[in-house]
Amino acid sequence: MLKIAMFGYGNLGKAVVDAIDAARDMELCGVIMRTQSLHKPKVSVPVVDDVSKLETKPDVALLCVPTRAVPGVAELCLAQGINTVDSYDIHTDIWELRQRLDMAAKKGGATAIVSTGFDPGGDSIVRALMEVLAPQGKTFTNYGPGMSLGHTVAVKAIEGVKNALSMTIPLGTGVHRRLVYVELLDGYAFDDIAAKIKADPYFVNDETHVYLESNVDSLKDVGHGVNMVRKGVSGKTHNQLLEFNMKINNPALTAQAMVACARASAKQVPGAYTVLEIPVIDMLDGSKEELIRRLV
Amino acid sequence: MLKIAMFGYGNLGKAVVDAIDAARDMELCGVIMRTQSLHKPKVSVPVVDDVSKLETKPDVALLCVPTRAVPGVAELCLAQGINTVDSYDIHTDIWELRQRLDMAAKKGGATAIVSTGFDPGGDSIVRALMEVLAPQGKTFTNYGPGMSLGHTVAVKAIEGVKNALSMTIPLGTGVHRRLVYVELLDGYAFDDIAAKIKADPYFVNDETHVYLESNVDSLKDVGHGVNMVRKGVSGKTHNQLLEFNMKINNPALTAQAMVACARASAKQVPGAYTVLEIPVIDMLDGSKEELIRRLV
Repeated sequence: MLKIAMFGYGNLGKAVVDAIDAARDMELCGVIMRTQSLHKPKVSVPVVDDVSKLETKPDVALLCVPTRAVPGVAELCLAQGINTVDSYDIHTDIWELRQRLDMAAKKGGATAIVSTGFDPGGDSIVRALMEVLAPQGKTFTNYGPGMSLGHTVAVKAIEGVKNALSMTIPLGTGVHRRLVYVELLDGYAFDDIAAKIKADPYFVNDETHVYLESNVDSLKDVGHGVNMVRKGVSGKTHNQLLEFNMKINNPALTAQAMVACARASAKQVPGAYTVLEIPVIDMLDGSKEELIRRLV
Repeated sequence: MLKIAMFGYGNLGKAVVDAIDAARDMELCGVIMRTQSLHKPKVSVPVVDDVSKLETKPDVALLCVPTRAVPGVAELCLAQGINTVDSYDIHTDIWELRQRLDMAAKKGGATAIVSTGFDPGGDSIVRALMEVLAPQGKTFTNYGPGMSLGHTVAVKAIEGVKNALSMTIPLGTGVHRRLVYVELLDGYAFDDIAAKIKADPYFVNDETHVYLESNVDSLKDVGHGVNMVRKGVSGKTHNQLLEFNMKINNPALTAQAMVACARASAKQVPGAYTVLEIPVIDMLDGSKEELIRRLV
Protein backbone atom coordinates (compact mmCIF):
# COMPACT_ATOMS: atom_id res chain seq x y z
CA MET A 1 0.00 0.00 0.00
CA LEU A 2 1.31 3.42 -1.01
CA LYS A 3 1.10 5.89 1.87
CA ILE A 4 -0.23 9.27 0.72
CA ALA A 5 -0.10 12.63 2.46
CA MET A 6 -2.22 15.48 1.18
CA PHE A 7 -1.35 19.19 1.36
CA GLY A 8 -4.43 21.43 1.44
CA TYR A 9 -8.11 20.64 1.79
CA GLY A 10 -10.14 22.70 -0.68
CA ASN A 11 -12.38 21.47 -3.53
CA LEU A 12 -9.49 19.54 -5.04
CA GLY A 13 -8.37 18.09 -1.70
CA LYS A 14 -11.85 16.74 -0.96
CA ALA A 15 -11.93 15.04 -4.36
CA VAL A 16 -8.47 13.60 -3.73
CA VAL A 17 -9.69 11.98 -0.48
CA ASP A 18 -12.46 10.28 -2.52
CA ALA A 19 -10.02 9.10 -5.21
CA ILE A 20 -7.59 7.65 -2.64
CA ASP A 21 -10.51 5.96 -0.91
CA ALA A 22 -11.59 4.36 -4.21
CA ALA A 23 -8.05 3.10 -5.00
CA ARG A 24 -7.13 -0.40 -3.80
CA ASP A 25 -3.37 0.18 -3.69
CA MET A 26 -2.98 3.30 -1.54
CA GLU A 27 -4.11 4.90 1.70
CA LEU A 28 -4.24 8.41 3.10
CA CYS A 29 -1.94 8.79 6.10
CA GLY A 30 -2.37 12.49 6.87
CA VAL A 31 -3.48 15.96 5.80
CA ILE A 32 -1.12 18.90 6.05
CA MET A 33 -2.63 22.38 6.37
CA ARG A 34 -0.43 25.42 6.91
CA THR A 35 -3.10 27.54 8.60
CA GLN A 36 -5.58 26.12 11.07
CA SER A 37 -8.86 26.49 9.23
CA LEU A 38 -12.16 27.01 11.06
CA HIS A 39 -13.53 23.91 9.40
CA LYS A 40 -11.66 20.76 10.35
CA PRO A 41 -11.25 18.38 7.39
CA LYS A 42 -13.67 15.44 7.51
CA VAL A 43 -10.97 12.78 7.50
CA SER A 44 -10.09 9.97 9.90
CA VAL A 45 -6.33 10.61 9.63
CA PRO A 46 -4.09 13.09 11.48
CA VAL A 47 -4.29 16.73 10.39
CA VAL A 48 -1.02 18.54 11.05
CA ASP A 49 0.72 21.75 9.98
CA ASP A 50 4.04 20.12 9.06
CA VAL A 51 4.60 16.88 7.18
CA SER A 52 7.39 15.86 9.57
CA LYS A 53 4.79 15.73 12.37
CA LEU A 54 3.09 12.71 10.79
CA GLU A 55 3.74 9.43 12.61
CA THR A 56 4.22 7.47 9.37
CA LYS A 57 6.44 9.00 6.71
CA PRO A 58 4.38 9.19 3.49
CA ASP A 59 5.66 7.79 0.19
CA VAL A 60 3.94 10.48 -1.85
CA ALA A 61 2.60 13.97 -1.17
CA LEU A 62 -0.33 15.20 -3.27
CA LEU A 63 -0.15 18.98 -3.43
CA CYS A 64 -3.69 20.39 -3.40
CA VAL A 65 -2.48 23.91 -2.66
CA PRO A 66 -2.75 27.06 -4.83
CA THR A 67 -0.58 26.77 -7.96
CA ARG A 68 1.88 29.47 -6.87
CA ALA A 69 2.56 27.61 -3.60
CA VAL A 70 3.47 24.39 -5.42
CA PRO A 71 7.23 24.89 -6.05
CA GLY A 72 8.03 25.69 -2.42
CA VAL A 73 5.93 22.90 -0.88
CA ALA A 74 7.26 20.39 -3.43
CA GLU A 75 10.90 21.23 -2.62
CA LEU A 76 10.16 20.82 1.08
CA CYS A 77 8.80 17.29 0.49
CA LEU A 78 11.43 16.21 -2.03
CA ALA A 79 14.21 17.23 0.37
CA GLN A 80 12.74 14.71 2.83
CA GLY A 81 12.66 11.96 0.18
CA ILE A 82 8.88 12.19 -0.32
CA ASN A 83 7.62 11.99 -3.91
CA THR A 84 5.33 14.82 -5.02
CA VAL A 85 2.46 15.15 -7.46
CA ASP A 86 0.98 18.54 -8.33
CA SER A 87 -1.53 20.11 -10.69
CA TYR A 88 0.50 23.27 -11.39
CA ASP A 89 -1.41 24.93 -14.22
CA ILE A 90 0.56 27.97 -15.40
CA HIS A 91 1.30 26.54 -18.85
CA THR A 92 4.11 28.94 -19.66
CA ASP A 93 6.17 27.99 -16.57
CA ILE A 94 5.80 24.19 -16.53
CA TRP A 95 9.23 23.53 -18.05
CA GLU A 96 10.87 25.79 -15.43
CA LEU A 97 9.01 24.01 -12.60
CA ARG A 98 10.08 20.63 -13.98
CA GLN A 99 13.73 21.73 -14.12
CA ARG A 100 13.62 23.19 -10.61
CA LEU A 101 11.98 20.10 -9.09
CA ASP A 102 14.24 17.77 -11.10
CA MET A 103 17.20 19.09 -9.13
CA ALA A 104 15.37 18.88 -5.80
CA ALA A 105 14.08 15.38 -6.57
CA LYS A 106 17.48 13.98 -7.56
CA LYS A 107 19.04 15.51 -4.45
CA GLY A 108 16.35 13.99 -2.20
CA GLY A 109 16.27 10.62 -3.99
CA ALA A 110 12.59 11.11 -4.80
CA THR A 111 10.37 11.71 -7.84
CA ALA A 112 8.15 14.66 -8.74
CA ILE A 113 5.35 14.51 -11.26
CA VAL A 114 4.37 18.00 -12.28
CA SER A 115 1.27 19.52 -13.84
CA THR A 116 -1.16 16.64 -13.99
CA GLY A 117 -4.97 16.96 -14.05
CA PHE A 118 -7.37 18.10 -16.78
CA ASP A 119 -5.23 20.53 -18.81
CA PRO A 120 -2.26 20.26 -18.28
CA GLY A 121 -2.60 16.51 -17.73
CA GLY A 122 -5.00 14.30 -19.68
CA ASP A 123 -5.25 16.83 -22.52
CA SER A 124 -1.44 17.02 -22.73
CA ILE A 125 -1.14 13.28 -23.39
CA VAL A 126 -3.82 13.48 -26.09
CA ARG A 127 -2.14 16.51 -27.69
CA ALA A 128 1.15 14.61 -27.83
CA LEU A 129 -0.50 11.43 -29.15
CA MET A 130 -2.24 13.38 -31.91
CA GLU A 131 1.16 14.68 -33.06
CA VAL A 132 2.57 11.14 -32.94
CA LEU A 133 -0.17 9.94 -35.30
CA ALA A 134 -0.28 12.97 -37.62
CA PRO A 135 2.90 15.06 -37.08
CA GLN A 136 2.06 17.83 -39.54
CA GLY A 137 -1.02 19.95 -38.87
CA LYS A 138 -2.68 22.04 -36.20
CA THR A 139 -4.44 20.96 -32.99
CA PHE A 140 -7.19 23.19 -31.63
CA THR A 141 -8.01 22.86 -27.94
CA ASN A 142 -11.50 24.19 -27.32
CA TYR A 143 -12.24 24.56 -23.60
CA GLY A 144 -15.62 24.55 -21.92
CA PRO A 145 -18.35 25.24 -21.36
CA GLY A 146 -17.05 25.60 -17.83
CA MET A 147 -15.66 27.91 -15.15
CA SER A 148 -12.21 29.40 -15.69
CA LEU A 149 -10.42 29.88 -12.40
CA GLY A 150 -7.74 32.18 -13.82
CA HIS A 151 -10.28 34.50 -15.46
CA THR A 152 -12.48 34.49 -12.34
CA VAL A 153 -9.55 35.55 -10.18
CA ALA A 154 -8.72 38.36 -12.62
CA VAL A 155 -12.27 39.76 -12.37
CA LYS A 156 -12.31 39.48 -8.57
CA ALA A 157 -9.15 41.60 -8.44
CA ILE A 158 -10.97 44.57 -10.01
CA GLU A 159 -11.96 47.24 -7.48
CA GLY A 160 -15.70 47.25 -6.81
CA VAL A 161 -16.24 43.56 -7.60
CA LYS A 162 -17.76 41.69 -4.64
CA ASN A 163 -18.02 38.27 -6.26
CA ALA A 164 -17.46 36.99 -9.79
CA LEU A 165 -17.48 33.96 -12.02
CA SER A 166 -16.05 33.69 -15.53
CA MET A 167 -17.36 31.01 -17.88
CA THR A 168 -15.41 29.86 -20.94
CA ILE A 169 -17.55 29.02 -23.97
CA PRO A 170 -15.85 27.27 -26.92
CA LEU A 171 -16.56 28.79 -30.33
CA GLY A 172 -14.32 26.31 -32.19
CA THR A 173 -10.82 26.55 -33.72
CA GLY A 174 -9.39 27.69 -30.38
CA VAL A 175 -11.59 30.81 -30.16
CA HIS A 176 -13.51 31.34 -26.90
CA ARG A 177 -16.35 33.52 -25.64
CA ARG A 178 -16.19 34.73 -22.03
CA LEU A 179 -19.35 35.10 -19.96
CA VAL A 180 -18.62 37.06 -16.81
CA TYR A 181 -21.12 37.22 -13.92
CA VAL A 182 -20.49 39.83 -11.22
CA GLU A 183 -21.88 41.06 -7.93
CA LEU A 184 -20.77 44.63 -7.15
CA LEU A 185 -19.98 46.50 -3.96
CA ASP A 186 -22.20 49.48 -3.16
CA GLY A 187 -21.27 52.70 -4.93
CA TYR A 188 -19.77 51.18 -8.09
CA ALA A 189 -21.35 51.56 -11.53
CA PHE A 190 -21.91 48.41 -13.56
CA ASP A 191 -20.96 50.02 -16.89
CA ASP A 192 -17.58 51.15 -15.51
CA ILE A 193 -16.80 47.71 -14.11
CA ALA A 194 -17.91 45.98 -17.32
CA ALA A 195 -15.62 48.26 -19.35
CA LYS A 196 -12.70 47.52 -17.02
CA ILE A 197 -13.25 43.77 -17.35
CA LYS A 198 -13.37 43.95 -21.15
CA ALA A 199 -10.11 45.96 -21.17
CA ASP A 200 -8.31 43.50 -18.88
CA PRO A 201 -5.51 41.51 -20.60
CA TYR A 202 -7.37 38.27 -19.71
CA PHE A 203 -10.41 39.40 -21.74
CA VAL A 204 -9.33 42.05 -24.23
CA ASN A 205 -8.78 39.62 -27.11
CA ASP A 206 -11.94 37.57 -26.61
CA GLU A 207 -15.64 38.22 -27.18
CA THR A 208 -16.66 39.09 -23.60
CA HIS A 209 -20.12 39.58 -22.11
CA VAL A 210 -20.56 40.91 -18.56
CA TYR A 211 -23.75 40.35 -16.56
CA LEU A 212 -24.85 41.80 -13.21
CA GLU A 213 -26.04 39.09 -10.82
CA SER A 214 -27.51 39.16 -7.32
CA ASN A 215 -26.09 35.79 -6.29
CA VAL A 216 -23.00 34.61 -8.21
CA ASP A 217 -22.50 31.59 -5.95
CA SER A 218 -25.81 30.15 -7.16
CA LEU A 219 -24.31 29.86 -10.67
CA LYS A 220 -21.32 27.74 -9.65
CA ASP A 221 -20.90 24.36 -11.33
CA VAL A 222 -17.50 22.64 -11.46
CA GLY A 223 -18.42 20.72 -14.61
CA HIS A 224 -16.03 21.42 -17.47
CA GLY A 225 -15.41 20.29 -20.98
CA VAL A 226 -12.89 20.13 -23.76
CA ASN A 227 -13.00 19.43 -27.47
CA MET A 228 -9.60 18.82 -29.08
CA VAL A 229 -9.47 18.63 -32.86
CA ARG A 230 -6.55 17.88 -35.15
CA LYS A 231 -6.58 17.67 -38.95
CA GLY A 232 -3.13 16.59 -40.00
CA VAL A 233 -0.78 14.58 -42.16
CA SER A 234 0.52 11.04 -41.57
CA GLY A 235 3.57 10.48 -43.78
CA LYS A 236 2.34 12.12 -46.99
CA THR A 237 -1.38 11.40 -46.50
CA HIS A 238 -3.42 14.51 -45.67
CA ASN A 239 -6.86 14.90 -44.06
CA GLN A 240 -6.27 12.60 -41.08
CA LEU A 241 -9.02 13.59 -38.62
CA LEU A 242 -8.57 13.18 -34.86
CA GLU A 243 -10.86 14.38 -32.05
CA PHE A 244 -11.03 14.07 -28.26
CA ASN A 245 -13.91 15.19 -26.05
CA MET A 246 -14.51 15.32 -22.31
CA LYS A 247 -17.49 16.48 -20.26
CA ILE A 248 -16.40 16.10 -16.68
CA ASN A 249 -16.43 17.25 -13.07
CA ASN A 250 -13.10 19.09 -13.04
CA PRO A 251 -11.90 18.63 -9.41
CA ALA A 252 -12.85 14.92 -9.54
CA LEU A 253 -10.93 14.38 -12.79
CA THR A 254 -7.90 16.33 -11.59
CA ALA A 255 -7.88 14.43 -8.29
CA GLN A 256 -8.10 11.11 -10.12
CA ALA A 257 -5.20 12.08 -12.40
CA MET A 258 -3.14 13.05 -9.35
CA VAL A 259 -3.84 9.72 -7.65
CA ALA A 260 -2.85 7.89 -10.84
CA CYS A 261 0.40 9.88 -10.94
CA ALA A 262 1.07 9.10 -7.25
CA ARG A 263 1.06 5.45 -8.31
CA ALA A 264 3.37 6.22 -11.25
CA SER A 265 5.72 8.29 -9.07
CA ALA A 266 6.70 5.16 -7.16
CA LYS A 267 7.79 3.46 -10.42
CA GLN A 268 10.21 6.13 -11.75
CA VAL A 269 13.86 6.76 -10.97
CA PRO A 270 14.59 9.96 -9.00
CA GLY A 271 13.90 13.15 -10.95
CA ALA A 272 10.99 15.29 -12.14
CA TYR A 273 8.60 14.31 -14.91
CA THR A 274 5.73 15.76 -16.88
CA VAL A 275 2.93 13.35 -17.81
CA LEU A 276 4.42 12.97 -21.31
CA GLU A 277 7.55 11.43 -19.83
CA ILE A 278 5.80 8.58 -18.00
CA PRO A 279 4.50 5.35 -19.57
CA VAL A 280 0.69 5.44 -19.29
CA ILE A 281 0.69 1.89 -17.89
CA ASP A 282 2.55 3.12 -14.78
CA MET A 283 -0.50 5.22 -13.87
CA LEU A 284 -2.82 2.20 -13.69
CA ASP A 285 -3.48 -0.30 -10.91
CA GLY A 286 -2.93 -3.92 -11.95
CA SER A 287 -0.29 -6.29 -13.25
CA LYS A 288 1.41 -5.54 -16.56
CA GLU A 289 0.05 -8.75 -18.03
CA GLU A 290 -3.58 -8.06 -17.05
CA LEU A 291 -3.42 -4.44 -18.25
CA ILE A 292 -1.74 -5.27 -21.57
CA ARG A 293 -4.15 -8.14 -22.30
CA ARG A 294 -7.13 -5.90 -21.62
CA LEU A 295 -6.08 -2.52 -23.01
CA VAL A 296 -3.57 -2.87 -25.89
CA MET B 1 20.04 10.03 -38.19
CA LEU B 2 18.38 6.72 -37.37
CA LYS B 3 18.98 4.12 -40.07
CA ILE B 4 15.80 2.20 -40.88
CA ALA B 5 15.38 -1.08 -42.75
CA MET B 6 11.95 -2.15 -43.90
CA PHE B 7 10.72 -5.73 -44.25
CA GLY B 8 7.99 -6.13 -46.88
CA TYR B 9 6.62 -3.72 -49.46
CA GLY B 10 2.82 -3.93 -49.55
CA ASN B 11 0.28 -1.15 -48.81
CA LEU B 12 1.78 -0.62 -45.37
CA GLY B 13 5.37 -0.69 -46.63
CA LYS B 14 4.65 2.00 -49.22
CA ALA B 15 3.15 4.23 -46.51
CA VAL B 16 6.18 3.60 -44.29
CA VAL B 17 8.51 4.84 -47.04
CA ASP B 18 6.46 8.08 -47.12
CA ALA B 19 6.55 8.47 -43.34
CA ILE B 20 10.32 7.92 -43.16
CA ASP B 21 10.75 10.41 -46.00
CA ALA B 22 8.73 13.00 -44.05
CA ALA B 23 10.73 12.49 -40.83
CA ARG B 24 13.77 14.71 -40.28
CA ASP B 25 15.60 12.34 -37.95
CA MET B 26 15.73 9.05 -39.88
CA GLU B 27 16.52 7.57 -43.26
CA LEU B 28 15.66 4.37 -45.08
CA CYS B 29 18.76 2.25 -45.73
CA GLY B 30 17.21 -0.79 -47.34
CA VAL B 31 14.17 -2.94 -48.11
CA ILE B 32 14.17 -6.64 -47.33
CA MET B 33 11.84 -8.89 -49.33
CA ARG B 34 11.90 -12.64 -48.91
CA THR B 35 10.56 -13.47 -52.37
CA GLN B 36 11.60 -11.61 -55.48
CA SER B 37 8.38 -9.88 -56.48
CA LEU B 38 7.59 -9.08 -60.10
CA HIS B 39 7.23 -5.42 -59.18
CA LYS B 40 10.45 -3.93 -57.88
CA PRO B 41 9.83 -1.48 -55.02
CA LYS B 42 10.05 2.17 -56.10
CA VAL B 43 12.84 3.09 -53.69
CA SER B 44 16.33 4.47 -54.17
CA VAL B 45 17.87 2.14 -51.56
CA PRO B 46 19.12 -1.45 -51.88
CA VAL B 47 16.46 -4.18 -52.05
CA VAL B 48 17.79 -7.49 -50.68
CA ASP B 49 16.43 -10.82 -49.47
CA ASP B 50 18.40 -10.88 -46.20
CA VAL B 51 19.04 -8.01 -43.81
CA SER B 52 22.69 -9.05 -43.39
CA LYS B 53 23.25 -8.29 -47.08
CA LEU B 54 22.74 -4.54 -46.48
CA GLU B 55 25.95 -2.50 -46.60
CA THR B 56 24.99 -0.38 -43.56
CA LYS B 57 23.61 -2.19 -40.52
CA PRO B 58 20.22 -0.62 -39.69
CA ASP B 59 19.37 0.62 -36.20
CA VAL B 60 15.71 -0.33 -36.52
CA ALA B 61 13.72 -2.76 -38.67
CA LEU B 62 10.10 -1.88 -39.45
CA LEU B 63 8.23 -5.12 -40.04
CA CYS B 64 5.62 -4.55 -42.75
CA VAL B 65 5.04 -8.27 -43.21
CA PRO B 66 1.86 -10.32 -42.57
CA THR B 67 1.07 -10.47 -38.84
CA ARG B 68 1.81 -14.18 -38.52
CA ALA B 69 5.31 -13.68 -39.94
CA VAL B 70 6.16 -11.01 -37.35
CA PRO B 71 7.52 -13.15 -34.48
CA GLY B 72 10.02 -15.01 -36.66
CA VAL B 73 11.31 -11.98 -38.55
CA ALA B 74 11.54 -9.98 -35.32
CA GLU B 75 13.65 -12.65 -33.60
CA LEU B 76 15.97 -12.75 -36.59
CA CYS B 77 16.57 -8.97 -36.35
CA LEU B 78 16.82 -8.82 -32.56
CA ALA B 79 19.46 -11.58 -32.59
CA GLN B 80 21.58 -9.26 -34.74
CA GLY B 81 21.08 -6.34 -32.35
CA ILE B 82 18.60 -4.54 -34.61
CA ASN B 83 15.56 -2.97 -32.90
CA THR B 84 12.18 -3.98 -34.29
CA VAL B 85 8.79 -2.31 -34.59
CA ASP B 86 5.73 -4.24 -35.73
CA SER B 87 1.98 -3.80 -36.12
CA TYR B 88 1.05 -7.31 -34.94
CA ASP B 89 -2.74 -7.15 -34.60
CA ILE B 90 -3.97 -10.43 -33.11
CA HIS B 91 -5.20 -8.84 -29.87
CA THR B 92 -5.41 -12.09 -27.91
CA ASP B 93 -1.73 -12.95 -28.49
CA ILE B 94 -0.03 -9.59 -27.93
CA TRP B 95 1.14 -10.40 -24.40
CA GLU B 96 2.69 -13.67 -25.62
CA LEU B 97 4.47 -11.86 -28.48
CA ARG B 98 5.79 -9.26 -26.05
CA GLN B 99 7.14 -11.96 -23.72
CA ARG B 100 8.74 -13.91 -26.58
CA LEU B 101 10.41 -10.82 -28.08
CA ASP B 102 11.42 -9.56 -24.63
CA MET B 103 13.73 -12.57 -24.29
CA ALA B 104 15.10 -12.19 -27.81
CA ALA B 105 15.61 -8.45 -27.39
CA LYS B 106 17.47 -8.73 -24.10
CA LYS B 107 19.68 -11.47 -25.55
CA GLY B 108 20.47 -9.35 -28.62
CA GLY B 109 20.89 -6.10 -26.69
CA ALA B 110 18.09 -4.50 -28.71
CA THR B 111 14.53 -3.25 -28.22
CA ALA B 112 11.27 -4.44 -29.73
CA ILE B 113 8.09 -2.36 -29.82
CA VAL B 114 5.14 -4.61 -30.53
CA SER B 115 1.65 -4.00 -31.88
CA THR B 116 1.65 -0.34 -32.81
CA GLY B 117 -0.62 1.29 -35.40
CA PHE B 118 -4.33 2.11 -35.37
CA ASP B 119 -5.75 -0.55 -33.01
CA PRO B 120 -3.65 -1.91 -31.32
CA GLY B 121 -1.61 1.28 -31.13
CA GLY B 122 -3.13 4.76 -30.91
CA ASP B 123 -6.44 3.38 -29.62
CA SER B 124 -4.61 1.39 -26.93
CA ILE B 125 -3.04 4.53 -25.46
CA VAL B 126 -6.43 6.28 -25.42
CA ARG B 127 -8.12 3.24 -23.82
CA ALA B 128 -5.48 3.24 -21.07
CA LEU B 129 -5.68 7.02 -20.58
CA MET B 130 -9.48 6.84 -20.25
CA GLU B 131 -9.05 4.31 -17.41
CA VAL B 132 -6.45 6.55 -15.78
CA LEU B 133 -8.96 9.44 -15.71
CA ALA B 134 -12.09 7.44 -14.82
CA PRO B 135 -11.03 4.00 -13.51
CA GLN B 136 -14.52 2.63 -12.95
CA GLY B 137 -16.80 2.23 -15.96
CA LYS B 138 -16.89 0.69 -19.42
CA THR B 139 -15.15 1.78 -22.63
CA PHE B 140 -16.83 0.97 -25.93
CA THR B 141 -14.60 0.85 -29.00
CA ASN B 142 -16.74 1.33 -32.10
CA TYR B 143 -14.81 0.56 -35.28
CA GLY B 144 -15.49 1.87 -38.76
CA PRO B 145 -16.92 2.53 -41.16
CA GLY B 146 -14.02 0.80 -42.83
CA MET B 147 -12.61 -2.41 -44.28
CA SER B 148 -11.84 -5.23 -41.88
CA LEU B 149 -8.87 -7.26 -43.09
CA GLY B 150 -9.54 -10.21 -40.77
CA HIS B 151 -13.17 -10.53 -41.84
CA THR B 152 -12.27 -10.11 -45.51
CA VAL B 153 -9.72 -12.94 -45.27
CA ALA B 154 -12.34 -15.17 -43.60
CA VAL B 155 -14.79 -14.64 -46.48
CA LYS B 156 -12.12 -15.23 -49.14
CA ALA B 157 -11.39 -18.60 -47.52
CA ILE B 158 -14.92 -19.85 -48.30
CA GLU B 159 -15.07 -22.14 -51.32
CA GLY B 160 -16.66 -20.46 -54.34
CA VAL B 161 -15.64 -16.93 -53.35
CA LYS B 162 -13.52 -15.28 -56.03
CA ASN B 163 -13.05 -11.92 -54.34
CA ALA B 164 -14.48 -10.32 -51.23
CA LEU B 165 -14.49 -7.27 -49.02
CA SER B 166 -15.95 -6.97 -45.52
CA MET B 167 -16.91 -3.57 -44.18
CA THR B 168 -17.35 -2.87 -40.47
CA ILE B 169 -20.15 -0.44 -39.59
CA PRO B 170 -20.35 0.84 -36.00
CA LEU B 171 -23.81 0.65 -34.40
CA GLY B 172 -22.60 2.05 -31.05
CA THR B 173 -21.87 0.42 -27.64
CA GLY B 174 -19.40 -1.99 -29.27
CA VAL B 175 -22.01 -3.56 -31.60
CA HIS B 176 -21.10 -3.75 -35.29
CA ARG B 177 -22.86 -4.46 -38.57
CA ARG B 178 -20.94 -6.35 -41.26
CA LEU B 179 -21.44 -5.53 -44.94
CA VAL B 180 -19.90 -8.25 -47.09
CA TYR B 181 -19.38 -7.77 -50.84
CA VAL B 182 -18.52 -10.88 -52.88
CA GLU B 183 -17.66 -11.96 -56.40
CA LEU B 184 -18.32 -15.67 -56.96
CA LEU B 185 -16.68 -18.34 -59.07
CA ASP B 186 -18.85 -19.93 -61.77
CA GLY B 187 -21.16 -22.69 -60.57
CA TYR B 188 -21.71 -21.44 -57.02
CA ALA B 189 -25.09 -20.21 -55.75
CA PHE B 190 -25.17 -16.83 -54.03
CA ASP B 191 -27.69 -17.95 -51.39
CA ASP B 192 -25.49 -20.87 -50.30
CA ILE B 193 -22.40 -18.67 -50.03
CA ALA B 194 -24.31 -15.97 -48.15
CA ALA B 195 -25.58 -18.58 -45.66
CA LYS B 196 -22.05 -19.90 -45.15
CA ILE B 197 -20.68 -16.41 -44.50
CA LYS B 198 -23.42 -15.67 -41.95
CA ALA B 199 -22.68 -18.97 -40.17
CA ASP B 200 -18.91 -18.31 -40.02
CA PRO B 201 -17.56 -17.64 -36.48
CA TYR B 202 -16.37 -14.20 -37.69
CA PHE B 203 -19.94 -13.19 -38.55
CA VAL B 204 -22.37 -15.42 -36.65
CA ASN B 205 -22.79 -13.01 -33.73
CA ASP B 206 -23.15 -9.82 -35.79
CA GLU B 207 -25.86 -8.40 -38.03
CA THR B 208 -24.45 -9.42 -41.43
CA HIS B 209 -25.55 -8.43 -44.92
CA VAL B 210 -24.07 -10.10 -48.00
CA TYR B 211 -24.16 -8.51 -51.44
CA LEU B 212 -23.21 -9.91 -54.84
CA GLU B 213 -20.89 -7.59 -56.76
CA SER B 214 -19.37 -7.67 -60.23
CA ASN B 215 -16.19 -5.79 -59.26
CA VAL B 216 -15.24 -5.91 -55.57
CA ASP B 217 -11.92 -4.13 -56.17
CA SER B 218 -13.82 -1.01 -57.25
CA LEU B 219 -15.24 -0.73 -53.69
CA LYS B 220 -11.86 -0.66 -51.93
CA ASP B 221 -11.09 2.34 -49.72
CA VAL B 222 -8.47 2.12 -46.96
CA GLY B 223 -10.15 4.89 -44.96
CA HIS B 224 -11.14 3.74 -41.49
CA GLY B 225 -12.63 5.16 -38.34
CA VAL B 226 -13.07 4.63 -34.65
CA ASN B 227 -15.30 6.10 -31.97
CA MET B 228 -14.24 5.29 -28.41
CA VAL B 229 -16.64 6.21 -25.63
CA ARG B 230 -16.24 5.88 -21.87
CA LYS B 231 -18.72 6.92 -19.19
CA GLY B 232 -17.04 6.34 -15.87
CA VAL B 233 -16.23 7.34 -12.32
CA SER B 234 -13.35 9.53 -11.08
CA GLY B 235 -12.95 8.97 -7.36
CA LYS B 236 -16.61 8.89 -6.29
CA THR B 237 -17.92 11.22 -9.00
CA HIS B 238 -20.00 9.46 -11.65
CA ASN B 239 -20.98 10.48 -15.18
CA GLN B 240 -17.50 11.48 -16.37
CA LEU B 241 -17.82 11.46 -20.19
CA LEU B 242 -14.81 10.78 -22.43
CA GLU B 243 -14.74 10.29 -26.21
CA PHE B 244 -12.10 9.81 -28.92
CA ASN B 245 -12.72 9.80 -32.67
CA MET B 246 -10.57 9.16 -35.73
CA LYS B 247 -11.39 9.22 -39.45
CA ILE B 248 -8.16 8.24 -41.14
CA ASN B 249 -6.30 6.50 -43.94
CA ASN B 250 -5.39 3.30 -42.11
CA PRO B 251 -2.05 2.31 -43.74
CA ALA B 252 -0.81 5.91 -43.47
CA LEU B 253 -1.71 6.13 -39.76
CA THR B 254 -0.22 2.73 -38.99
CA ALA B 255 2.98 3.61 -40.88
CA GLN B 256 3.25 6.90 -39.01
CA ALA B 257 2.80 5.15 -35.65
CA MET B 258 5.52 2.65 -36.62
CA VAL B 259 7.94 5.43 -37.56
CA ALA B 260 7.22 7.18 -34.23
CA CYS B 261 7.94 3.92 -32.41
CA ALA B 262 11.17 3.43 -34.37
CA ARG B 263 12.27 6.73 -32.85
CA ALA B 264 11.14 5.58 -29.38
CA SER B 265 12.87 2.21 -29.76
CA ALA B 266 16.25 3.93 -29.76
CA LYS B 267 15.47 5.53 -26.36
CA GLN B 268 14.55 2.39 -24.36
CA VAL B 269 16.76 -0.13 -22.57
CA PRO B 270 16.92 -3.62 -24.16
CA GLY B 271 13.63 -5.52 -23.96
CA ALA B 272 10.18 -5.62 -25.55
CA TYR B 273 7.48 -3.02 -25.03
CA THR B 274 3.88 -2.38 -25.91
CA VAL B 275 2.92 1.23 -26.63
CA LEU B 276 1.55 1.58 -23.08
CA GLU B 277 5.02 1.00 -21.66
CA ILE B 278 6.71 3.86 -23.51
CA PRO B 279 6.54 7.56 -22.59
CA VAL B 280 4.62 9.32 -25.39
CA ILE B 281 7.32 11.99 -25.60
CA ASP B 282 9.84 9.37 -26.77
CA MET B 283 7.75 8.91 -29.95
CA LEU B 284 8.11 12.55 -30.98
CA ASP B 285 10.88 14.38 -32.84
CA GLY B 286 12.27 17.37 -30.95
CA SER B 287 13.98 18.36 -27.72
CA LYS B 288 12.29 17.62 -24.41
CA GLU B 289 12.14 21.31 -23.62
CA GLU B 290 10.51 22.29 -26.91
CA LEU B 291 7.98 19.43 -26.74
CA ILE B 292 7.05 20.02 -23.10
CA ARG B 293 6.68 23.78 -23.61
CA ARG B 294 4.40 23.23 -26.60
CA LEU B 295 2.35 20.16 -25.64
CA VAL B 296 1.96 19.86 -21.83
